[in-house]
Amino acid sequence: MEASGGMAHTPTALPYFVALSQVLGLTVVAVTGAWLGLYRGGLAWEGALQFNVHPLCMVIGMIFLQGDALLVYRVFRNEAKRTTKILHGLLHVFALIIALVGLVAVFEYHKKMNYADLYSLHSWCGLLVFVLYFVQWLMGFSFFLFPGASFSLRNGYRPQHVFLGATLFLLSVGSALLGIEEALIFGLKSKYSEFQAEGVLANVLGLLLICFSAVVLYILTREAWGRPPRAEEQALSMDFKTLTEGDSPGSQ
Amino acid sequence: MEASGGMAHTPTALPYFVALSQVLGLTVVAVTGAWLGLYRGGLAWEGALQFNVHPLCMVIGMIFLQGDALLVYRVFRNEAKRTTKILHGLLHVFALIIALVGLVAVFEYHKKMNYADLYSLHSWCGLLVFVLYFVQWLMGFSFFLFPGASFSLRNGYRPQHVFLGATLFLLSVGSALLGIEEALIFGLKSKYSEFQAEGVLANVLGLLLICFSAVVLYILTREAWGRPPRAEEQALSMDFKTLTEGDSPGSQ
Repeated sequence: MEASGGMAHTPTALPYFVALSQVLGLTVVAVTGAWLGLYRGGLAWEGALQFNVHPLCMVIGMIFLQGDALLVYRVFRNEAKRTTKILHGLLHVFALIIALVGLVAVFEYHKKMNYADLYSLHSWCGLLVFVLYFVQWLMGFSFFLFPGASFSLRNGYRPQHVFLGATLFLLSVGSALLGIEEALIFGLKSKYSEFQAEGVLANVLGLLLICFSAVVLYILTREAWGRPPRAEEQALSMDFKTLTEGDSPGSQ
Repeated sequence: MEASGGMAHTPTALPYFVALSQVLGLTVVAVTGAWLGLYRGGLAWEGALQFNVHPLCMVIGMIFLQGDALLVYRVFRNEAKRTTKILHGLLHVFALIIALVGLVAVFEYHKKMNYADLYSLHSWCGLLVFVLYFVQWLMGFSFFLFPGASFSLRNGYRPQHVFLGATLFLLSVGSALLGIEEALIFGLKSKYSEFQAEGVLANVLGLLLICFSAVVLYILTREAWGRPPRAEEQALSMDFKTLTEGDSPGSQ
């Protein structure tokens, strides 16, 4: 049902879903900024406000940029594969650097305030995601951008890369939700249960995060919305299919 | 690459992943029980212990049974579709009923203790998931089990049903993580940061929940592991394809 072979074809509904994802993603970043600005005293690298750098950086890096990096192959579906690949890798690098700044902020803040590190479920999930995200980037770079890996190696690794990528994105959203809940309980204490404006705003931010990730996931999982292989890529993959026809599908 | 057309074929790695999912799922239920039994005084429908019915029921219903209901089409891949469908629907009904008991438990507990309802991000996410899960079940029943819906209607709705089903499963896991973090911060207070046994156990439970959902998601997303259509189903779907060949792939 899908047009294939390098034809410049874009499914009708795709641009609307991509637009929706970007509106949601930018809203998530804006609402995070509004929360920190209106109720948490804004941003600074010094003093207690250093903490606020953490949620903002994590949302920009691990949610918005990471989500957009996953969408690159859907959005730039008719560009050369190499260009798209480099953009995908670059967006993930930006996400990693911004998230690293966010991590440094929270560790420095904890040290300054003499708080314990890495005891909460939020911190366990968050650190797990960040480490795996870095490993995934290194593996992705070695397999897909570094010229060494063979065609068959790339094809075998690709489904694992895609699965881990989507999983890490979802786990990032989960960690963010945990962080919001933790910040609200610690910050508002018993006032959280009185439906004060900050609590409601940050809960809404949680729902917006869920909506953003759901739309990104929806775009990624529509089979017909995948990047169609260009004519020359298709010829290569045909050769590969002929060579490996004997492989068992479940043996990977 | 996949054997098709009613052949009784099971991909080599599938049973191992299914076994892993079941080990993880049962471990999650057992660790939840151990947490509530060892550190929270066990279960009862009366008094303060009524709260403990909530996490156990939600984990059994919305995590373990819901996850298993999603796997039914992969596990019973060579059974008649109707049998598999009924099992899928039944597991979801059990999940709904058990989750409903868990919800009643927490609302009754809140009433007894004079606590506010539905103010936290955990409660917002949890209630959203439960309501959508109920709607999804009703829609699924009307489209796929009730005899009225036409073949083309079912085929159009199926991808949406599958996407919403997977999303609700992941959101259930997210809500459970939020609930664990909330229970630990409220229950342990400043002791949470001292790495006490309860905190570590419940954090590990959180990681096990993530592992269970990741394995379920992995099984669901392997294309070659999908249920192969039987000969008679394939013939029907061929006719359908011929009839609808003109449809635009992006128009749904």
